[in-house]
Amino acid sequence: MAPGRMLGHENLGVVIEVGRGVDRIKVGDRVCLPFNIGCGFCANCERGLSGYCLTVNPGSAGGAYGFVGMGPYSGGQADYLRVPYGDFNCLMLPRDSEEKESDYVMLSDIFPTGYHATELAGVQAGDSVVIYGAGPVGLMAAYSAALKGASQVMVVDTQKDRLQLAEKLGAIAIDDTEGGGIKRVLELTGGKGADRGRECVGYQCCNRHREEVPNLTMNKLVQTVKATGRIGVVGVFLPENPQAKDKLARRGRLAFDFGQFWFKGQSIGTGQANVKAYNRPLSKLIEHDKVKPSWIVSHELPLSRAPEAYEKFD
Amino acid sequence: MAPGRMLGHENLGVVIEVGRGVDRIKVGDRVCLPFNIGCGFCANCERGLSGYCLTVNPGSAGGAYGFVGMGPYSGGQADYLRVPYGDFNCLMLPRDSEEKESDYVMLSDIFPTGYHATELAGVQAGDSVVIYGAGPVGLMAAYSAALKGASQVMVVDTQKDRLQLAEKLGAIAIDDTEGGGIKRVLELTGGKGADRGRECVGYQCCNRHREEVPNLTMNKLVQTVKATGRIGVVGVFLPENPQAKDKLARRGRLAFDFGQFWFKGQSIGTGQANVKAYNRPLSKLIEHDKVKPSWIVSHELPLSRAPEAYEKFD
Amino acid sequence: MAPGRMLGHENLGVVIEVGRGVDRIKVGDRVCLPFNIGCGFCANCERGLSGYCLTVNPGSAGGAYGFVGMGPYSGGQADYLRVPYGDFNCLMLPRDSEEKESDYVMLSDIFPTGYHATELAGVQAGDSVVIYGAGPVGLMAAYSAALKGASQVMVVDTQKDRLQLAEKLGAIAIDDTEGGGIKRVLELTGGKGADRGRECVGYQCCNRHREEVPNLTMNKLVQTVKATGRIGVVGVFLPENPQAKDKLARRGRLAFDFGQFWFKGQSIGTGQANVKAYNRPLSKLIEHDKVKPSWIVSHELPLSRAPEAYEKFD
Amino acid sequence: MAPGRMLGHENLGVVIEVGRGVDRIKVGDRVCLPFNIGCGFCANCERGLSGYCLTVNPGSAGGAYGFVGMGPYSGGQADYLRVPYGDFNCLMLPRDSEEKESDYVMLSDIFPTGYHATELAGVQAGDSVVIYGAGPVGLMAAYSAALKGASQVMVVDTQKDRLQLAEKLGAIAIDDTEGGGIKRVLELTGGKGADRGRECVGYQCCNRHREEVPNLTMNKLVQTVKATGRIGVVGVFLPENPQAKDKLARRGRLAFDFGQFWFKGQSIGTGQANVKAYNRPLSKLIEHDKVKPSWIVSHELPLSRAPEAYEKFD
Repeated sequence: MAPGRMLGHENLGVVIEVGRGVDRIKVGDRVCLPFNIGCGFCANCERGLSGYCLTVNPGSAGGAYGFVGMGPYSGGQADYLRVPYGDFNCLMLPRDSEEKESDYVMLSDIFPTGYHATELAGVQAGDSVVIYGAGPVGLMAAYSAALKGASQVMVVDTQKDRLQLAEKLGAIAIDDTEGGGIKRVLELTGGKGADRGRECVGYQCCNRHREEVPNLTMNKLVQTVKATGRIGVVGVFLPENPQAKDKLARRGRLAFDFGQFWFKGQSIGTGQANVKAYNRPLSKLIEHDKVKPSWIVSHELPLSRAPEAYEKFD
Repeated sequence: MAPGRMLGHENLGVVIEVGRGVDRIKVGDRVCLPFNIGCGFCANCERGLSGYCLTVNPGSAGGAYGFVGMGPYSGGQADYLRVPYGDFNCLMLPRDSEEKESDYVMLSDIFPTGYHATELAGVQAGDSVVIYGAGPVGLMAAYSAALKGASQVMVVDTQKDRLQLAEKLGAIAIDDTEGGGIKRVLELTGGKGADRGRECVGYQCCNRHREEVPNLTMNKLVQTVKATGRIGVVGVFLPENPQAKDKLARRGRLAFDFGQFWFKGQSIGTGQANVKAYNRPLSKLIEHDKVKPSWIVSHELPLSRAPEAYEKFD
Repeated sequence: MAPGRMLGHENLGVVIEVGRGVDRIKVGDRVCLPFNIGCGFCANCERGLSGYCLTVNPGSAGGAYGFVGMGPYSGGQADYLRVPYGDFNCLMLPRDSEEKESDYVMLSDIFPTGYHATELAGVQAGDSVVIYGAGPVGLMAAYSAALKGASQVMVVDTQKDRLQLAEKLGAIAIDDTEGGGIKRVLELTGGKGADRGRECVGYQCCNRHREEVPNLTMNKLVQTVKATGRIGVVGVFLPENPQAKDKLARRGRLAFDFGQFWFKGQSIGTGQANVKAYNRPLSKLIEHDKVKPSWIVSHELPLSRAPEAYEKFD
Repeated sequence: MAPGRMLGHENLGVVIEVGRGVDRIKVGDRVCLPFNIGCGFCANCERGLSGYCLTVNPGSAGGAYGFVGMGPYSGGQADYLRVPYGDFNCLMLPRDSEEKESDYVMLSDIFPTGYHATELAGVQAGDSVVIYGAGPVGLMAAYSAALKGASQVMVVDTQKDRLQLAEKLGAIAIDDTEGGGIKRVLELTGGKGADRGRECVGYQCCNRHREEVPNLTMNKLVQTVKATGRIGVVGVFLPENPQAKDKLARRGRLAFDFGQFWFKGQSIGTGQANVKAYNRPLSKLIEHDKVKPSWIVSHELPLSRAPEAYEKFD
């Protein structure tokens, strides 16, 4: 099993059968599959928005393997995977794909998702960037910001081991356990806030007493990103959440600092990654040894600690 | 007085004196001034974000004439206006500027603001667009969408006279008095929602009982814009509002459908218009008789009804 | 026969059979086909560059029906057309497609090609635009510029009847028969040149003595477009042309004013239209009665004069 | 004297006097000046195109210190420099500017020019890039491509010492002395050509016999860049060159492979760098130790060999 698997729902393997209508992919090809599924010809897929395919999950926008509400597709943790629209969805891997399997497997979800945060936030060379969340996606977001030439990458979290990883990636780790994160980001950016922000936590963000406070991260982003800055949100938020304690959260709502957000002229981009928009260029970076995304896996968890890791991820 | 004045805080006139350091503008030039003030050389102005100038209102981002909290500049309703950084802020008007004064005066605020909504929403030729609010800014947003080649421009409001104006502009007027607006937009867009949305109402949006419900428009936009769609917000929202009845609104917060917004992969751009980014190309359209923004003024209010108009605007 | 046919190689019709692997398109659907053919999953198609598909014409970039060197696909003038990758290539037409057939048929080539010129040149609302060539593509380029809110659309040609059509479209017709075109464009743009230029003539451009002078149009564009301006080239140029009299032209070369071009900091975009990138939004404009591209056909040639028209086109 | 000086016409120093109308810059400030001069308020400067200022050199677009035809401004090699529009043109340097003077001085010309090539070519993370010319600008272009996350950076030249520097930067050095450069680039890119190309040589490009062949580099770029690829040209080309042996070159013309260029659907961006568009973000990268552009100076020439270096540069 590829070590990356446990971080999500990635899929990498060898093609053992092709259906009629498949033209390009052959039995024996080594391919990597995006976690989300596109058709390749709907109004969204043809513009590169394959995470919001209008075909594969009729009545909705977006399909995925093994997700409730994302269409009738069995999950990516199984031994075999049935792939619709194989020519469109399979990324052919280069020759070094066996040797670098633990890197390429990251192309199905976590690396493109971290990179998507970077794109949603519009990161340019020279920008300062603040990232909330130092989990796998947050670390890949930090990695992606460095890749695109950010001048400062600040990662905010409350878990010391994650923050250490962020530091090893060259980021500035900011421990928000005692709540000083906002002040620290402002200090590091001359009082103005970061040029770009990224949300890599989602609806389950917690305060320092480990209580879920759903609006915590988004409102901190509004405060720590500069006027005219842009925020990319890849942490998952739910349209409704009957289990939530918070009354607004049950209806999928946040008490969002919209007034401050508007006054600062900020903007937000959201949503799951359109994996196909990124996995091809990112695979070139692996092939030419410019990036090594398996790094976060190998550092985060020795394989022998996998079951423990699952728990931690949950 | 230019008829446009009463719609906001526009400024158009003849230069009667120039200070030292002013190079290009001469006494006698006819110029139009943006409502906001920029320096031309700060990090924001040099990127075209003159609405968020870092120089003219120290400690904040953005200055304007005659606004509380927007710097020490007297207002645009006075007889004379003192203009800082005159070379940067003055738009020189072409020869037809006397004859078309009521058009050019719209370049200081309302026309660029409506156009800004269009830019924030990323409107492209062929798009369907839904606009909330048929006030002057909403109408200029509709006008701007048509100018950029939108295929459907839907304007939602509850005031019949405003909706009639929208229809005269070629837009599809949607009367939301009885609350059927969402259903109507979905019908008109094949159930998917509009490609782009614009908010031209602001924090004082009301339900049909004329009670302020601050999150009403934004949440309707999330519902009526398609997955992956983009929303531009130029209606004013306040960082805090001590007068508000709503507890969240007092702190500048909205109970925003963030879960739905994220799930649909939508994005939002906000803020006041960077007038200088638009007033030059828009002036060319007036000069070459491609647009006539005074149309909404002349239709909305005969000059004899100006005092009444002020009240209505308020 | 659709009147648009004779202007190029368009295809519009009813599906009479679907192959295996076709999922979305059904027998009886009315569809319009781009003149070029894409696969939907190669590195170019997935980024919207379907005019440069890497699959359909192995060893090259780009395939088309009935073109030498563009792959083994029979031409679009035949009674029946075999369409590879049907789900990707067919544009489903709306209900009004029979009634407006002469408009929708323009979506296979001429309208997207004229629009492509506009995109290559980066036309924005308020821009001045100069177009060389008032043939069908040049007229559609003028139409597209107007659609996107250009403030001045100047069309340069030497044929009076074509120029009259351009004028009917609202453009400024410039007769270059006596060679005063450059001077006229500069006059109309305050001596600076147009913001954007479009080349809709191709390698067979002629001087006033009807001699082919291949570099004539491109060098005029460099002169009549402003410093920092952008030029879109959709007129066809050939990699080699053994029949050419001009020695450079035989090798596909132009004596291009590169020094002037560089000194002015101009840029050029070229190539055939990626029809699929445009035909969907343009079809919405037809459906909602915002454009009527058949206009140029109906004006240019009464159907009884079709054979003559063919000659003229040649 | 800053070592960077000899590579061009950079300017870095301490302000000793400020004129009336200067507001932000104070005596004693350490500043870096772009080689080109802008006013900050003309139609080009306000859009960030400060290399094509319409004010400082009336009748032309663009001014610079000490260049023939670029306005009445004394050159940057003098002891003192008179700076028009000081607030707009001076880049304030951070506290580490004395210590890193040899890095910051690169912001006046070479580093932004190399970066400009990257922007003109539209380099994205994962792209393969081919650069012609391994002089200072070519090396900075290679450095900039790496900074933006290119997967392959290929540098083509005929001088071995320069190619060694390119290799030290992590680029793939391609020695074109024997003319195999085109073949090598195609091999390295799977036969397709590079995603992006950059021209950092200019009109004086030579064949292997050291004869000027003005069209050599541009036509090689057309061959070694993929279909749909984009080419950035920052090497200088002249509108006319009476000294040239080549008849076309005397008139500023190139025998350019326009047919191939069009058939491949390529695009070109050209011109001198708009330094102000880049020097601020690039200064952040120096300040935060992400880049060290003085590297190429220190490697290329020990200071004792400066006179020799001047000759070589010439």
